[in-house]
Amino acid sequence: MPVYPTHTMKAFDDELDRLNQTLGRMGGLAETQLGTAVQAMLTRDEALAAQVISGDDQVDGAEDHINEQVVRLLALRQPVADDLRLVMSALRVASALERIADHATSTAHRVAVLNQAPMVPAVKSVARLGWLVRDLLKEALDAFMSRDADRALKVWERDEEVDDLYSSLFRELLTYMMEDPRHIAPCTHLQFIAKNLERVGDHATNLAEATWFVVHGTPLSANRPKKDMSSYTMAEPRHLSPQDQSPE
Amino acid sequence: MPVYPTHTMKAFDDELDRLNQTLGRMGGLAETQLGTAVQAMLTRDEALAAQVISGDDQVDGAEDHINEQVVRLLALRQPVADDLRLVMSALRVASALERIADHATSTAHRVAVLNQAPMVPAVKSVARLGWLVRDLLKEALDAFMSRDADRALKVWERDEEVDDLYSSLFRELLTYMMEDPRHIAPCTHLQFIAKNLERVGDHATNLAEATWFVVHGTPLSANRPKKDMSSYTMAEPRHLSPQDQSPE
Repeated sequence: MPVYPTHTMKAFDDELDRLNQTLGRMGGLAETQLGTAVQAMLTRDEALAAQVISGDDQVDGAEDHINEQVVRLLALRQPVADDLRLVMSALRVASALERIADHATSTAHRVAVLNQAPMVPAVKSVARLGWLVRDLLKEALDAFMSRDADRALKVWERDEEVDDLYSSLFRELLTYMMEDPRHIAPCTHLQFIAKNLERVGDHATNLAEATWFVVHGTPLSANRPKKDMSSYTMAEPRHLSPQDQSPE
Repeated sequence: MPVYPTHTMKAFDDELDRLNQTLGRMGGLAETQLGTAVQAMLTRDEALAAQVISGDDQVDGAEDHINEQVVRLLALRQPVADDLRLVMSALRVASALERIADHATSTAHRVAVLNQAPMVPAVKSVARLGWLVRDLLKEALDAFMSRDADRALKVWERDEEVDDLYSSLFRELLTYMMEDPRHIAPCTHLQFIAKNLERVGDHATNLAEATWFVVHGTPLSANRPKKDMSSYTMAEPRHLSPQDQSPE
C-alpha cells in the first residue's frame, strides 16, 4: 500500500466519510420507500402510493451522486487494497438500494389497480412478507453502516425465511385464484408484488455480502444456502387438499 | 483534457480496446442466453433450459471482469471528459447485460414447471414478445459497439412496441386463466416470463441511452415517450367481450 502524505490521507478520509453519509441517506430513503409502499397496499391508500412513485427520482438521484463520488475518489485518490474494496462496495450497495426502491415503486403502481377490485384477504399475507423484508433491509443497512460482519451474516442466513414465506404465499395466491375467477386479476397483481418483495430480500442479502467482503476481504457467497425452488413448481387444483384451498 | 505522452495514450487505447472486446463478448453471451431461454420455453426443451441456467455464471464472470478492467482504467489512467464517459458507460452496459441474462435464467427456471401441465396456446404469444426483445437487444448492442447514436435512437423509440405487446399479453393471459382453472398455474408462470421479457426491453432501452450518451454527451432520457401503463389495470371477466376471451 502506498504511503500518502498526511494531508492526502485526511482528504481521502473526508471523502470516504461523505460517501458513507450519502449511502446512509440513500439507505434510509430506500427503507422508507419500501415500508410506505407496503403500507399503501395494505391500507388501500392511493395518496401514499403516489408519494412512493414520486419519491423514486430522489433515490435515483442519490445513486447518481454516489457513482460520481466513487469516480472522483478512484480517479483522484487511486485507492488500493482495503480502501479500494470499500469504495467499490459503495457502488454495489447503491445499486442494490436503487433496485430495492424500484421494487417499492413497482408495488406502489399496483395499489390503484388493486383498489378497483374488492380486497382479497391474501393482501395481509403479502404485507407480512413486506414487513419481513423491510426488517431484513434495516438490519442489513445497520450492519453495513457499522461494518458489523456477524450481524450481516445473520441477515444473510435469514434469506431462507423470505424464500419460504414467498413460496407459501405463491401457493396461497394460486388457491385464491382457483376459488373464484374474480380473484384472478387482483391476485395476479399480488403475485407480482410478492415477487418484488422476494427480490428485495435478495438485495438485502447482497448488502450483507458486501458488508462481509468489506470487513473480511473474502466473499461470503461461496457457502450460500440453496435457494428454495418450490415457487417454481406447479400447483394444480387436484393437487390441493381442502384445507390448502382456504388458507389464511 | 490533459495531454498524455504518446506511449500513455497508446496504452490507454489498448485497454479501451480490450474493454470493448469484453463488452462485445458479454453482449453476445446475453443475447444467446435470452434466445435460448425463449426457444426452450417454446419447444418445452428442459435440456436447453438447463444450458441457460448453467450459463449464467459465465455472464456474471464477464461482468466482474469488466468491473475490474474499469477500476484499473480509472485508477491508472485517470480518464477525463469523453474517455471517462466511455469508461463509465461500460459499467452501465455490463450491468444491463447482467440483468438481461438474469431474466433469461429466470425464464429458463420456469420451463420444467410449465412442462408439468399441458401446453397453453398463449406460450406462442409470450415467445413473440421474446423474439421482439431479442431483436431489440441485438440492435441495441450493434448500435453501442459501432457508436451509432441514430441506430440507438431507433431502438429506444421501439420500446413502446414492447410495452404494447406486453400489455395485450398480460390481458390475454388473464383471459386464459379465467376460462379454465387448470390454466391458472401455468399462466401465472407465463405472466412472470412475460414480465421478465418486458424488463429485457427496458434494459435494451438503457443500452440505447448509454450509446446516445457516449456519442453526444447529453442524456437521451429527458424526452422519453410515456410508458404504457395498461398492464397496471384490472381486467375483470365482465369487462371482457367474447372475442377478447379467446384471443390467439
